[in-house]
Amino acid sequence: MADKHIVSAFDRDLEGIQAQIMKMGGLVEAAILDAAQSLEERDEELAEKVRAGDKAIDALEDLINENSARLIALRSPTAIDLRVILTVMKISGNLERIGDYAKNMAKRTGVLVQMSPISGSHAALRRMAREVQLMLKDALDAYIRRDAELAMDVIQRDRDVDQMYNALFREFLTFMMEDPRNITSCMHLHFIAKNTERMGDHVTSIAEQVVYLVRGKIPEDGRPKGDQTSSNAELGKI
Amino acid sequence: MADKHIVSAFDRDLEGIQAQIMKMGGLVEAAILDAAQSLEERDEELAEKVRAGDKAIDALEDLINENSARLIALRSPTAIDLRVILTVMKISGNLERIGDYAKNMAKRTGVLVQMSPISGSHAALRRMAREVQLMLKDALDAYIRRDAELAMDVIQRDRDVDQMYNALFREFLTFMMEDPRNITSCMHLHFIAKNTERMGDHVTSIAEQVVYLVRGKIPEDGRPKGDQTSSNAELGKI
Repeated sequence: MADKHIVSAFDRDLEGIQAQIMKMGGLVEAAILDAAQSLEERDEELAEKVRAGDKAIDALEDLINENSARLIALRSPTAIDLRVILTVMKISGNLERIGDYAKNMAKRTGVLVQMSPISGSHAALRRMAREVQLMLKDALDAYIRRDAELAMDVIQRDRDVDQMYNALFREFLTFMMEDPRNITSCMHLHFIAKNTERMGDHVTSIAEQVVYLVRGKIPEDGRPKGDQTSSNAELGKI
Repeated sequence: MADKHIVSAFDRDLEGIQAQIMKMGGLVEAAILDAAQSLEERDEELAEKVRAGDKAIDALEDLINENSARLIALRSPTAIDLRVILTVMKISGNLERIGDYAKNMAKRTGVLVQMSPISGSHAALRRMAREVQLMLKDALDAYIRRDAELAMDVIQRDRDVDQMYNALFREFLTFMMEDPRNITSCMHLHFIAKNTERMGDHVTSIAEQVVYLVRGKIPEDGRPKGDQTSSNAELGKI
């Protein structure tokens, strides 16, 4: 009976922390979409909302870290339960980084509204952001359902995001070479594309954690390797 | 006596993990310097060494994570000891990211040797990398000596790295506008500058962890905030 009591207390505490992770994930998903929308529609008010909202995301990460450390100290979890909590802490770290990138995207909206728009690029960036948001949603679902297959699917889809990034990289180079007046705005847009691609990397990292949690090992060959493609695609990573 | 025995076992295990962190830190410091040297001297062999060496850094991170999880599960550390182990895990995560950026810098050496060099920029990038490597050395020393003052000093110095980045950003814009043939190489050099600036952010994060470990709270006002400076400097962050 004593054992059962301890297990239940652990599970209840863990459930509370998992609810915080889901809340954090929801805020980050919204931040990605809002940041991309603010860019496409040149909506500075929405951009400001994203920037201000990042504080809530950061606060949730601190809370999750605190609660996780307290849970470990209080309940001395078994090896498997411990792995879950350490995974939760890593996931919250990844979410915080993705939130930072969304905030940075929103910051650049404020700069880009003062420049002539680059044809088609904002819509392409928004599609890329939308893909990353869907990947994040699935990665978090995979975590909750301990679904390694869904997590592997997310890892595979990061390849599409990398390809979108590489296409945009080439497009921005062309715009800059055609007209030097495009250089400054293309530099900012390129950063946004790169940061979105990095968001995809962090989502992939979450999915890899889920696979590790379920199967006990990080997928070695699951993740698309830049090295297998052209040197330009390779440089797209990191 | 039983208590004393447990404490000693914990300390001995922790010491082993800390030795691994120091080894990892040494490899990452060398990777930063070698990557910058390979770029400046157009030394593809050295660049290849950095790329290959990243595997050893990644393997150390995995080992540190495993050993830390085992230590927590075996010794059920107190709140304070637990904080140390969680800090160690975060530091190893930061070191791994810095190693990735160094690898990426080395990858770009292979691309840049095929283009005309941009006057002065390689030397400036090397100075920036050197500064980040010194900050990292001090951050790790601060961790070992539990020296919050030294850690605060590292956090302050990140401002210099941000300024170096902002100066290079403006320089690359000028080069690109002067001659469109510079655009591709400047895009790569700009990435290197940005990634070096990000390395500085990860070193700052290590230093903040040290301050948290010693003082029990993250420095709120210690970190130079981009928001206090110009909008260009602000965009330099992230």
